[in-house]
This record gives sequence, C-alpha cells and structure tokens, in this order.
Amino acid sequence: MFGFTYFAPTKVVFGKDTEKQAGALVRACGGSRVLVHYGGSSALKSGLIGRVVKSLDEAGIFHVELGGVVPNPHLGKVREGIELAKQNDIDFLLAVGGGSVIDSAKAIAYALADPDHDVWELFQGKRSAVGCFPVASILTIAAAGSEMSNSCVITNELTGEKRAYNDDLARPRFAVMNPDLTKTLPDYQTESGCADIMMHTMERYFTQGGNMELTDEIAEAVLRTVMKYAKILHADPQNYEARAEVMWASSLAHNDLTGCGNDGGDFATHMLEHEMGGMFDVTHGAGLAAIWPSWARYVYKECMPRFVRYAIKVMGVKDEGQGDEQIALEGIAKMEEFYRSIGMPTNMRELGITPTEEQILEMARSCREACGGKQGSAKVLYEEDMANIYRMAL
Amino acid sequence: MFGFTYFAPTKVVFGKDTEKQAGALVRACGGSRVLVHYGGSSALKSGLIGRVVKSLDEAGIFHVELGGVVPNPHLGKVREGIELAKQNDIDFLLAVGGGSVIDSAKAIAYALADPDHDVWELFQGKRSAVGCFPVASILTIAAAGSEMSNSCVITNELTGEKRAYNDDLARPRFAVMNPDLTKTLPDYQTESGCADIMMHTMERYFTQGGNMELTDEIAEAVLRTVMKYAKILHADPQNYEARAEVMWASSLAHNDLTGCGNDGGDFATHMLEHEMGGMFDVTHGAGLAAIWPSWARYVYKECMPRFVRYAIKVMGVKDEGQGDEQIALEGIAKMEEFYRSIGMPTNMRELGITPTEEQILEMARSCREACGGKQGSAKVLYEEDMANIYRMAL
Repeated sequence: MFGFTYFAPTKVVFGKDTEKQAGALVRACGGSRVLVHYGGSSALKSGLIGRVVKSLDEAGIFHVELGGVVPNPHLGKVREGIELAKQNDIDFLLAVGGGSVIDSAKAIAYALADPDHDVWELFQGKRSAVGCFPVASILTIAAAGSEMSNSCVITNELTGEKRAYNDDLARPRFAVMNPDLTKTLPDYQTESGCADIMMHTMERYFTQGGNMELTDEIAEAVLRTVMKYAKILHADPQNYEARAEVMWASSLAHNDLTGCGNDGGDFATHMLEHEMGGMFDVTHGAGLAAIWPSWARYVYKECMPRFVRYAIKVMGVKDEGQGDEQIALEGIAKMEEFYRSIGMPTNMRELGITPTEEQILEMARSCREACGGKQGSAKVLYEEDMANIYRMAL
Repeated sequence: MFGFTYFAPTKVVFGKDTEKQAGALVRACGGSRVLVHYGGSSALKSGLIGRVVKSLDEAGIFHVELGGVVPNPHLGKVREGIELAKQNDIDFLLAVGGGSVIDSAKAIAYALADPDHDVWELFQGKRSAVGCFPVASILTIAAAGSEMSNSCVITNELTGEKRAYNDDLARPRFAVMNPDLTKTLPDYQTESGCADIMMHTMERYFTQGGNMELTDEIAEAVLRTVMKYAKILHADPQNYEARAEVMWASSLAHNDLTGCGNDGGDFATHMLEHEMGGMFDVTHGAGLAAIWPSWARYVYKECMPRFVRYAIKVMGVKDEGQGDEQIALEGIAKMEEFYRSIGMPTNMRELGITPTEEQILEMARSCREACGGKQGSAKVLYEEDMANIYRMAL
C-alpha cells in the first residue's frame, strides 16, 4: 500500500428539508454576499430556489442568482458568473444543483481568487490555483460527487475541450443533501448518476498496486449498495430510502475514501468519456456505462486479480473452478447485465452516438493530449489503445 | 433512516516517515507556538519526540514539551498543561501519542479558549464549550479514534470520575499516521486497541432503528478488516500492512462514518466500561472486551435483527435453519472466541478485576449519573440493568 492524504472537510447536512438551513450554514461559514448558481428552470419552478433564497433572506444574507448552467458546463457561463460576482462583491458561491452546477461554481470561485489570470489556464494545465472563494452546494442530483470532491470539470464550448482541474482549495464548505430533491429527476438521469457513482469507485478499484483491504472492502460496500438501490429506483423512483442510499454513496464514492492507499487509480474510463462528452454532449454517467465494458475487456488480462475479486465480491460470480479468466469475463458480462437492467447503454450505439473513424481518431488524439500522453493503472493506455477501445465500443 | 450531520475535517497524512511533516503541517494551519504533549518516556527514548521537535524547529515554530499523560488521562495533567500553555502563549496543541494524549490536549485547548471557566464543568455537563484552540496529533496507538473524532474523555483522579465531552470544535486539524510508530506497542495494547476500534463501530451498529444499508455495509467492512488484521498482528506484530489497516480503521470507526443515518448509537458498553476504568484503571479496550459479551447476552433479545445480521455478516455464522435466537447467540460466542484468540478478556475476572457487590452498586450508580439516568438504543438500560450486567461479567 502507498501513503496517502485524506482530506474531506465538507460538512454534510443530510435529510429532509435540510435546504432550509442554507442561510444559517452560509452565515456560519462567514459568507455575506452569495451568488446562487443553478441550472435549468426546474429548480425555479419546483420552488427550491425560492426556499433557498428565503433562507438566505432570513439570515440577512445578500444574494444574486445566476441560472442556465448546462450539463457538461460551459466556460462561457463560468465567465458570465465571474462578471456578475465581481459586480456584486460576491464572497460565497452557493451551487443549487448537481455536479455541473457545482463545478461551474468552483470555476467561478477559482477565478475570483485570482482576478489577474484567465481561469481556463487551470484546465489547460498551464498553472495551479493560488486560492478559491468558498463554495457550498445544495445537491439535487446524486452522481458526480463534486459536493465533497476536489474535482472540477468544465467544457470549453468553443473548442469542444472538456477538461478537469483538481485542487483541495475547491473542496466545498458544506453540502446540503435532501434525498427528496432528487425524486423529480427523469429515470435516465437517476440511473446515469448511479453509473457515475459506481465508476468513481471502480476507477480507484482497478489498479495495479497499493491496494488496501479496508479500502477494497469499503469500495465493494459502496458498489453493492448502489447496484441494489439503482434497481429499486428504476422500479420505484419515489423511494426515499433508496434515494438516500444513492445520494450518500455519491459523496463517499468521490471524496477519496475509496482510494486510500492505492496508486491514485486508473481513471482511463473517465478520460475516454470526457472526449465523448466534449464531442457529442452525452450524459456523463451513461457515457461511462457505454465505454466501460470495452475498456474492461481491453485491459482485464493485465489486471486479473482485481477483475477476479470484483467479479466475486461485487458481481456475485461463483468460483466453481472455471478459472480466473472466465471469472473475470463473467464479472464484466454481469456488469453489462446490470447496466441494461437499469436502462443504461453498454456501447456507443446504445448511447445514441456513432462516431466516424475520423472522429474516433480525433477523440483519441484529444484524450491523449488531455492525459498528458498516457492514462491508466490497470493498463497504461496510449493514443492507439484509446482509439482501439472507442472502436470496440461502437 | 434519520437525517444526520457528517463533519470530519481532519486532514489525514498517512504513511511512512510522515511525522517529519509536522512542522510544515502546523505552519499550514497557522500555528506558531506549539505545546508538544505526550505520554510516557518511550516517545522520548524512541527518538520520536526528537524528530517532531526537529521538524518544528526547521519550520521556525516555537515549542514547549509536556509529557507524563497517563492512560485514562488525568484532570491534574490537563491543568498543568493549561498553566504551561498560558505561560508560553501557546496557540497550537500537538499531541504525540494515542487517545489519552489527544484527549488531554483537547481538554487543554478547550480551557485556553475560555480562560474564565473551569474546564471540568464541560465534563460535568454544566455548560458547552465556546471555543477550542487548534489541536492536531501524531498518532502512536491505533485505538481511540480521537485523532478524527469530536470525543474527549478525561478522568478526575481525585473523585474517580471518568467523563466524556463531545464537541465538533475539538475535531483535530490534522492527523499524522505512520503505522511504523505503532510497532513498539506491547501486544496487549495493540489488541486492546483493536477491541476499542471494533467497539466504536459496534456501538453504532446495535441500534433499534434508523439503520442505513451503506452505513451497515461500511461498518461490517471495518469490523471484518480489524478482526482479520488483529489476528495477524497477534502473531506478527511487525507487519506494516496489518498495522496500517488497523490504524486507518481506528479513524474511520470513530469519525462518525459508521453511524450515518442511525439513531446516535447505543454506547452503553462504553459507559459501563468508563466506570470500570475510573475505579480500577484498566486498559480501555480490554475493559470493553470484558463487558461486551455480558451486555450482548443481556440485550440481544430486544435487538434481534441486528444481532442476527452481525452474526452472519461479520462473524461468519451460517444460517442453517437454527433460528434467529440461536444465530444471535452463536455470533456472540464467536466474538468471545475472537477476543480470546487475540488475548483479550471476555469477563472481569479475565481482565484482572473482581469488584465487590458494593463496588458494583457504586459503578452502576455512577454510570447512571454519567448517562443522565439511562443509556442505550439496542435496549435502554437503567441503574438496575447496569448492575445486572456488571454481575454477569464477573
């Protein structure tokens, strides 16, 4: 096992009606002028933004609102937020939404702490952040885990580049999690979220070394729990307990708990999907489900012990002497079966995209560039491998 | 399930030689004048205090040292620390040791933030803390979990009262965890630590309601992992991987992760043991092991589903149609078997204490008082129940 740093300072306030505590929580963090950032009009229409704003008003906190964040959030909206925040002397970013809204708020927060530089340079790898204004969230989608993570993924809509920047400076101050708020999500979004949560755990699980038994056990606990409740939600979207299990899993899957002691994880599936998301604007979790089986079949031979353990402890494959390779392949097949059972795709056709060979080569080139040349721990992937996996996933 | 707040802001720096980062970590937290608090002379003789002090010197940080903290740390030492800290304008408490040293440092830190009141009043339940100076630790014993928890337990050596005060204000800023530092512990201390870690998880597991599947799965993961590596350490105390597994489990077992969504936990076993520790100065984890089987047999009928699940998922009892009661009892027996396998007691005689009936009544009375009249979730215990359990555990 490797040494590690674990730092998850976000205060989680979990349960029914917790959004009503927004004002008091911002106040306790020292915030006095808040940008309330959100996505589509559903947050307005449902009355959620109204309740949040009321709570801020009751705490005597100044606020301005900026909606319109789209999935795979745009740099243009980030720039709009930066301007609005500067005009209003904003000192606290409150994201009301899912990963896209939280990431957009994090990007604005980086920019406010360093007004002399263009924030996109962080995502281009040209420099590191020198600070970050405080960010917090009221979560409405269980998926990205951005509510406790140091991740931030922004898409430059002008170039089609989808890029990540990770820094502990952006770990949110608090995360309000009311499972009821996720009940209005379309099933496809709920299940994409479940696929994303699982992948955050699996990216850290399929590694060549450094694995820690306690981390593995917790990762397997997260995966089994999400699978169980994803299936329940597919049949019964209003189930509060199931919403709660998935919501809490979304945070634990990506606050680094499931990676303690390992080598940093694989994350090739995420990098491959980012290019699909940048080029075709697909739903992130569904994109991950569409590419993972091809990635798994491409790499499993080089990471056999992990695929065998996964098959047995997560997917419930019985070891009946069929041999490691067969067990590993049965585990991958059972994962595809699970994806289909909750309406998730297992390849790009089922995802609804059919990239041309030229587009595949372009995605592989861009992916290689975003990864700094190569990616992966289960198996190190180069540009050619990336293109091969895209082709397998057609 | 119940709503919950989860707040574990401590930065964990885990791995070999991490104590050399002490100075930089204190500096990053804004500390400039440090009280280095520790226990017996072994920390000095081993060179650990020397390495820590060197790291502080290199970071240009003023420091004074105060050793002599004993297990079941004394209020008198806390008062000595308060005086020394005031004389030296201390602004940061660095505990080098286990739970006793960390708790002693937390108590000093509470006192420094509120110099007009006697700190013991917190432990008497007379008032709440208004602040707490920053505390951090370099952990040398995996057991109490105080390195990430909001707990603080102090013994008033003049009255024999062992009392807890819990407040998020005292959550440590960072925890340096180098598993190598625990290799010199006597086996009895190592295994007492494992018993304590497991009990922190079990106190939250045996409840009447509010259980969350993800929390249960994680709790079971922690318990299985600690059992596995406690046995390995009993045979091979120098095993780094096993030391690391147990050390990380100590933090996760008591940073509230294993209680998310439940009703706050049972904690009767801890309260019963506190009186044993106050009267006889026993090793905390061993005391817990000595009292738990009697507690379990006293309460299991009223919390059957949890005891059955525990027996099957943690203790590996096979359900062969023997019925719930039999499964639960087999689980308790297997736990006793495990305790014995690592040299832990399963009753007070094996622990080395034989309280008289008068002492039992006094412990029960004091326990009732410390609990505010009653204690427990699996089964609510009153003074009479407490005495009954002490008698069963003779």
